[in-house]
Amino acid sequence: MLLAQTLACIGELDREAMARAQGRVDSLLKPPGSLGRLEEIAVKLAGITGKPFPVIKKKSVIVMAGDHGVVAEGVSAAPQEITYQILPRFVDGTGGIGVLARHAGARVVVVDIGVARPVDWPGVIVRKIRAGTGNIARGPAMTREEAVQAISVGIELSQAEIRDGADLIATGDMGIGNTTPSSAILCAMAGTPVDEAVGRGTMVNDEVLERKRRAVAEAVNVNQPDTTDPLDVLAKVGGLEIAGLAGVILGAAAQRVPVLLDGFITGAAALIAAGLCPRVREFMLASHLSEERAHRHMLTALGLKPLLDFNLRLGEGTGAALAMPVVEAAVKVLAEMATFGEAEVSDMDREKLL
Amino acid sequence: MLLAQTLACIGELDREAMARAQGRVDSLLKPPGSLGRLEEIAVKLAGITGKPFPVIKKKSVIVMAGDHGVVAEGVSAAPQEITYQILPRFVDGTGGIGVLARHAGARVVVVDIGVARPVDWPGVIVRKIRAGTGNIARGPAMTREEAVQAISVGIELSQAEIRDGADLIATGDMGIGNTTPSSAILCAMAGTPVDEAVGRGTMVNDEVLERKRRAVAEAVNVNQPDTTDPLDVLAKVGGLEIAGLAGVILGAAAQRVPVLLDGFITGAAALIAAGLCPRVREFMLASHLSEERAHRHMLTALGLKPLLDFNLRLGEGTGAALAMPVVEAAVKVLAEMATFGEAEVSDMDREKLL
Repeated sequence: MLLAQTLACIGELDREAMARAQGRVDSLLKPPGSLGRLEEIAVKLAGITGKPFPVIKKKSVIVMAGDHGVVAEGVSAAPQEITYQILPRFVDGTGGIGVLARHAGARVVVVDIGVARPVDWPGVIVRKIRAGTGNIARGPAMTREEAVQAISVGIELSQAEIRDGADLIATGDMGIGNTTPSSAILCAMAGTPVDEAVGRGTMVNDEVLERKRRAVAEAVNVNQPDTTDPLDVLAKVGGLEIAGLAGVILGAAAQRVPVLLDGFITGAAALIAAGLCPRVREFMLASHLSEERAHRHMLTALGLKPLLDFNLRLGEGTGAALAMPVVEAAVKVLAEMATFGEAEVSDMDREKLL
Repeated sequence: MLLAQTLACIGELDREAMARAQGRVDSLLKPPGSLGRLEEIAVKLAGITGKPFPVIKKKSVIVMAGDHGVVAEGVSAAPQEITYQILPRFVDGTGGIGVLARHAGARVVVVDIGVARPVDWPGVIVRKIRAGTGNIARGPAMTREEAVQAISVGIELSQAEIRDGADLIATGDMGIGNTTPSSAILCAMAGTPVDEAVGRGTMVNDEVLERKRRAVAEAVNVNQPDTTDPLDVLAKVGGLEIAGLAGVILGAAAQRVPVLLDGFITGAAALIAAGLCPRVREFMLASHLSEERAHRHMLTALGLKPLLDFNLRLGEGTGAALAMPVVEAAVKVLAEMATFGEAEVSDMDREKLL
């Protein structure tokens, strides 16, 4: 219900706002085009928000945490317990996303959407759909209904942040083992071959890498996800935090709020979201290119170019938080730079030049 | 005198501080290496500053402005007048660097080191060595003595900022026509062929591009700069703001303060600085890869990898200001993230993994 309503609300970029923003950008006190991607971002944000001068005042990183039954296949180097243990560090600001979000001036919303253990850490929002997914190498991750519920949680939380004033939403994930379902989603949604789609995730050795490849291949073989049905893919080979993040993305896009994607796990969520509504891609910005090599296939499928290339592979929304100041810079260029006319500086004679 | 003293002060990276910073980075609440380049930057800054926990509290962008006699060859699309006209916009915060430096929380220091017209704009520091360079396609840009004086101005201003508390110095330039001497410096200092070294600068068309190539080739032929003598190269085919920026870089390195390079013009200054003292390269960070394509040859010669790739070609220090929050993020990760021990989270069993 909420999902269908949300999908129906996702519109197109506002071409008029973009044209006005582009006009302003071209009149600023600089050679046309000389601020490169900052100009592109500013115009895109105008299109997303429908405002020729978009503003970013309040930023939120929504971090969804969930566990994965597929860890039983030995696909992860770290113990599942870490998903649970690390959450208070996201809340108290001493985990990676805590530090980088504080630096960016962003709020962190930490959500248990599917952690295996009961979570009662102060400050963590508990919206658990189930205590971890099933082992996708042997059967489905969750039911279709659970997938829809998890997406709905994401939509609700994203829209709650927006009601609270957020004008930039970033995504983050935590879940030991979650590169495996993300790779499986990439295979199903973009047709990427298993060997291309599976990477080392969090420091796995050759043996574990081989087990990951096998698990992803089995996940696809055993579950036979219907690649034309993103909800089927999500339910069969996905994850609860991935579903939640797909919801976060859709919820923000429906409100015309830009979504800053983090890395590989968020990329899988974005593929699901884009499968449900191709237009949602226009509302996304890719914060960075992950060290997880298959991430580039996701970004290609989404038609996005990453802002940063920092070899990050931590997740949690760290890449998204890191890119926030750059996105804000674009908005400020548009709003705060003078034009040639305002500054009473001789315009550069474009006719002569171009 | 000041130059020689400054060169003598430039030391090596502090390996002990780097080892301590690396040890801390490896114990942080994340898989080893998972914060990628942020970790590298943090460790490098420890080496530069000699502090295992470097801090960045006060940031300055020093923008050097100068004019270029070579504009007589028709190498620039914009009128020379703009160098003079735009300076107040850097001071009042409505020019590109004004907006981006304010966003980064950095101070902007605007210096007339060689603008053709007399400058009496409020807030601009006037340290003019001469009113623009000679036309390098016909003779030297300046005398060797003037080059040394201009470098000394840069050293003095950089060190004044540092005395005033700056712990990160960024470079910026303004000077219509200054991609031409920068290309000539690249040819002389790195042996790059003229065709490779010359780009379109600020929106020049094919005809102007051809004139730029000819001017650079003539500059090298006519002046015959001694490529083993960076001061000779600078005086014969350089620029006053380029000399000043070389001084800014050297002055900061001598005080063990990291220098965030901007784009192509700063890159030429960095080549001169590195020619005078190869160790100075270790104190540099490259903020971005410029849209001016030959910039990549400069960065290769300097052994630097850019932080951003945003197709910027505005100069003024805009790329450096844009990258400041990313550099600060690295420092904060080091200082503010908890370790596994502090956070009482099970360590990831590295023996099992690697």
